[in-house]
Amino acid sequence: MEFYRVVQERRSIRSYLPTKVADDKLVRVLTAGQLAPSGKNAQAWKFIVSREAELKAALVGACKGQKFIAEADIVLTVCVDQTACYQDHGAYMTSFAVDGAIAMQQMMLAAVVEGLGTCWIGAFSEEGVREILNVPEPYRIIGLTPLGYPANAGKDRGRKELAQLIKWEKW
Amino acid sequence: MEFYRVVQERRSIRSYLPTKVADDKLVRVLTAGQLAPSGKNAQAWKFIVSREAELKAALVGACKGQKFIAEADIVLTVCVDQTACYQDHGAYMTSFAVDGAIAMQQMMLAAVVEGLGTCWIGAFSEEGVREILNVPEPYRIIGLTPLGYPANAGKDRGRKELAQLIKWEKW
Repeated sequence: MEFYRVVQERRSIRSYLPTKVADDKLVRVLTAGQLAPSGKNAQAWKFIVSREAELKAALVGACKGQKFIAEADIVLTVCVDQTACYQDHGAYMTSFAVDGAIAMQQMMLAAVVEGLGTCWIGAFSEEGVREILNVPEPYRIIGLTPLGYPANAGKDRGRKELAQLIKWEKW
Repeated sequence: MEFYRVVQERRSIRSYLPTKVADDKLVRVLTAGQLAPSGKNAQAWKFIVSREAELKAALVGACKGQKFIAEADIVLTVCVDQTACYQDHGAYMTSFAVDGAIAMQQMMLAAVVEGLGTCWIGAFSEEGVREILNVPEPYRIIGLTPLGYPANAGKDRGRKELAQLIKWEKW
């Protein structure tokens, strides 16, 4: 699919069909994450692919009860080792959140190509997800997304005008 | 350009031609950032487009002397308002780094479609860039990239095997 169409068609999908995601589609989505850039090329990611009904139900509990998460065939969780990533991003933070977000977004765009839906879940308890999925320290959990066949087309939530977002030369 | 080709062809470009980026290409790149998702759809971004030679030279100084940054026609800087973004991402952080990284990566992928190069700059001084570009509090600076015509094809820096990155069901 043409790149700009992917960007334009991506929506946050909050209703899913239970249909299984074919292996080749899943591999292409995960490969888009593998090919993401990362600070110092550390690639300090783990992508957790969860399909068991009990796990998915438990994750709903750690995500403020957002039940649609468990409707999809897969819940995908992105983690980054905060000690292995770049330690001095902007001279004020480690790069784990940036690295994790880039990889996750590349996978979520790839999902559109595959006819699959996703939704960035930021409303979660890191400690809750850590316990359910056995994520060890020093990995931080960047986000989760359902990954499956959309039951609806999602909503266009509206955008600020481009002119509102741009500063020319400097602020 | 086909989505997976964009993802595969993107490289960190560290050498640029001085050729000016046409306005229509720049607008399409910026629009890819505009269309990115963000926590609670806050869209708390600013994208700073800097072309003045003096500004670009000063930015090199705030980026550990990485001279190639000033070779490109444009330096693009992404900022996010840390008070306007989602305040409880993962119940442990504000979403500014995640939101900013997503928008920046969508723009950097769009650059590939336009035949332009980019390079995530994480080695910068936020305070230095803030002063040069007049970025006000409470905006945080997520990263910079040169945006221009590549003078070389960039290097494939190597990737971990996909199997190293994936955990099935849980850790």
